[in-house]
Amino acid sequence: MQASESLETRMIDSALRAWRSNADRIDKFFAALSPEQLEQEIAPGRNRLIYLWGHIAALNDGLFPLVGLGPRLYPEIEAMFITNPDRAAIAIYSAEQLKQAWDQINEKLLAGFSGWSPAEWLERHTAVSAEDFLREPHRNRYTVVLSRNTHMASHFGQAILAMPRDPKL
Amino acid sequence: MQASESLETRMIDSALRAWRSNADRIDKFFAALSPEQLEQEIAPGRNRLIYLWGHIAALNDGLFPLVGLGPRLYPEIEAMFITNPDRAAIAIYSAEQLKQAWDQINEKLLAGFSGWSPAEWLERHTAVSAEDFLREPHRNRYTVVLSRNTHMASHFGQAILAMPRDPKL
Repeated sequence: MQASESLETRMIDSALRAWRSNADRIDKFFAALSPEQLEQEIAPGRNRLIYLWGHIAALNDGLFPLVGLGPRLYPEIEAMFITNPDRAAIAIYSAEQLKQAWDQINEKLLAGFSGWSPAEWLERHTAVSAEDFLREPHRNRYTVVLSRNTHMASHFGQAILAMPRDPKL
Repeated sequence: MQASESLETRMIDSALRAWRSNADRIDKFFAALSPEQLEQEIAPGRNRLIYLWGHIAALNDGLFPLVGLGPRLYPEIEAMFITNPDRAAIAIYSAEQLKQAWDQINEKLLAGFSGWSPAEWLERHTAVSAEDFLREPHRNRYTVVLSRNTHMASHFGQAILAMPRDPKL
């Protein structure tokens, strides 16, 4: 990335950096936890860490169809970590399976994002009709990725509460 | 905003929407709480809601100098909610004072953001030297605003844990 690149190319670079730095922090945090640690609740009676990790992975997997990058990679993950609450009577991924799914989802998502031209970034997402998009052109892929990135961050903020207290956070 | 706007103008619109929707949710959440509710901890032994709100406000106030919009509006807020942990031996704002500061900070920040041309959005932030910026042009205002937005979201994710449990979140 050079300062001489077009403004829109530099803004895409910013968005990708924001996404990547968020996803990398989340990866580093969860990948370092043992299966036992992943059973820990973020606060008494709240979600376990493994559920929160799966929830973020499942949200990201849902991005593929939403931004037109194809079907979800792990269709079963939605019932495990979105539709059902934590500790529902349903089998969920082991830590190892989840790590594998998480890696695949994020690698393929980033590859997809990186393949778009600036104009393609601003194409409509699939949950808005062509007609509505004419009136609401902000309902595009770029907006979706920024908004999902903040959503991902809000769940990560919850996850780190499971760790010993940092007096300032 | 029209689909016929330039790509970079549309991307700025996306970034502003992401910021605004995040700040609005946070405002709605905290402004609805009584002073007594703001004393609640987000989890046993963790920060009180008022501290977390102040922390987000103080981070946002720190954006003014960082992106070259002038000095902080409330210089004393940093010691109250960033430098010192919650329950330090230091006087902090009342709920009412904090609400007033929060409103001022966010209103003025958004006014500042809205006044930049696309090229101005991509100017360097003040924590990077002109020399380093030549090599690292991503260290600009746009990147800072995206990254602070995810940071703000991560603390909001923590704040909502103080509320009665949503079985899925």
